[in-house]
Amino acid sequence: MSTHSYFICPALKCLVSFSDCLGSKVFTIIKSDINGNITKIRAVYVTNPAKYTTLEDILVAEREAHGAEWPKVGATLALMWLKRGLRFIQILLQSLADGDRDENNPNLIRVNITKAYEQALKRYHGWIVQKIFNAALLAAPYRSNFLKALSKGEEVKEEDCLANLRQFLVNYTATIDAIYEMYTNLNAELNYTV
Amino acid sequence: MSTHSYFICPALKCLVSFSDCLGSKVFTIIKSDINGNITKIRAVYVTNPAKYTTLEDILVAEREAHGAEWPKVGATLALMWLKRGLRFIQILLQSLADGDRDENNPNLIRVNITKAYEQALKRYHGWIVQKIFNAALLAAPYRSNFLKALSKGEEVKEEDCLANLRQFLVNYTATIDAIYEMYTNLNAELNYTV
Ligand SMILES: CCCCCCCCCCCCC/C=C/[C@@H](O)[C@H](CO[C@@H]1O[C@H](CO)[C@H](O)[C@H](OS(=O)(=O)O)[C@H]1O)NC(=O)CCCCCCCCCCC
Ligand SMILES: CCCCCCCCCCCCC/C=C/[C@@H](O)[C@H](CO[C@@H]1O[C@H](CO)[C@H](O)[C@H](OS(=O)(=O)O)[C@H]1O)NC(=O)CCCCCCCCCCC
Repeated sequence: MSTHSYFICPALKCLVSFSDCLGSKVFTIIKSDINGNITKIRAVYVTNPAKYTTLEDILVAEREAHGAEWPKVGATLALMWLKRGLRFIQILLQSLADGDRDENNPNLIRVNITKAYEQALKRYHGWIVQKIFNAALLAAPYRSNFLKALSKGEEVKEEDCLANLRQFLVNYTATIDAIYEMYTNLNAELNYTV
Repeated sequence: MSTHSYFICPALKCLVSFSDCLGSKVFTIIKSDINGNITKIRAVYVTNPAKYTTLEDILVAEREAHGAEWPKVGATLALMWLKRGLRFIQILLQSLADGDRDENNPNLIRVNITKAYEQALKRYHGWIVQKIFNAALLAAPYRSNFLKALSKGEEVKEEDCLANLRQFLVNYTATIDAIYEMYTNLNAELNYTV
């Protein structure tokens, strides 16, 4: 199967319900940034669903339509940022699934969040947003609450929850990898910071 | 003239162009919170412009429609927050017009922003958002650039800019005062923190 036939919707749904797992009101802000990305991508898609059967179709069409402005434009820009949020979540969940822990604070997930941040987002953030990240980190939920929320509040044993997570991560990681690969192949990745 | 006949649109326009004056990308986030408030109020207004000739009409209608949920609902909630952002800006501009300055850093406006924050917003923010505010403060523009942006980049002498500001603040402050008074009178103010 070509990497381009992956469709983004399941990943999007995951992302939005993921942010529902983040307790604090602080995260409604992040959610609205992410929802903005999704709205932008969908808005292009619905103009011609038959034409845009893959995400790559959208990027290629925008490259033709926007000339020198591209790739810092439209759904191409929205997906560029969205994939970083998706990668952040993937690394965070993988780190939990792998059992990475701060032995002194076993019920905190700051080490996992920090790992995900460093690998997925930090390089695209100027020092002020990095400082804001550090402050927001204090609003991170406890490990136990976070895992419970991932299981939608159902009574699931921690081991079962982690097993589900590992299962989920197989396709999820492959999808994100494919999106990153597409950005590399189309030379659509930008490195500016916000 | 009754305080209730004030219309919010000029104040809104000011607020949105105000946030255009804030250089950093950090502030696009705040802008989207504020724009969300505006969208929500407008959405109610346009359902029946003839009925809603004043903001008070909207609050009273929502009080009747929503029962115990009110005032944490709809345009009532959106305006409750919006007015705090408007007050923040008013106090900031007033402080600049009054010449409040940090003598050691005369080209910074952190003292003015902090004063506005303490009076308008801080009590509604939990400690994490307060920490985020402190980080965001580092992204504040320089005084000279900020005043220039307020004059829409035109070549205006600082003294003229401040005189315009003082002129502007007369009606602006009265409008915001009226909105606050309305919330007090209708017992529509809430004190929860985010
Ligand atoms: C009054 C007091 C308070 C003061 C207010 C301070 C405000 C603080 C704001 C801090 C920044 C919040 C994070 C958002 C950052 C965003 O700036 C970036 C870039 O955002 C992109 O920018 C593009 C243009 O360059 C387009 O507009 C994109 O939009 S477009 O669709 O139009 O093309 C947009 O997504 N997104 C990001 O960095 C993505 C972030 C994903 C986060 C994933 C989860 C992280 C969880 C962290 C847990 C600890
Ligand atoms: C990935 C790395 C980064 C991690 C991301 C961190 C994210 C950081 C987010 C920080 C918070 C940003 C400020 C926004 C705060 C908002 O939470 C509050 C309440 O917001 C209100 O909440 C209500 C429900 O309670 C409704 O939803 C309202 O919405 S409703 O319309 O639906 O009813 C909504 O406006 N508004 C506020 O406090 C208003 C703030 C106005 C600010 C005015 C200018 C300040 C300038 C400061 C200069 C230094």
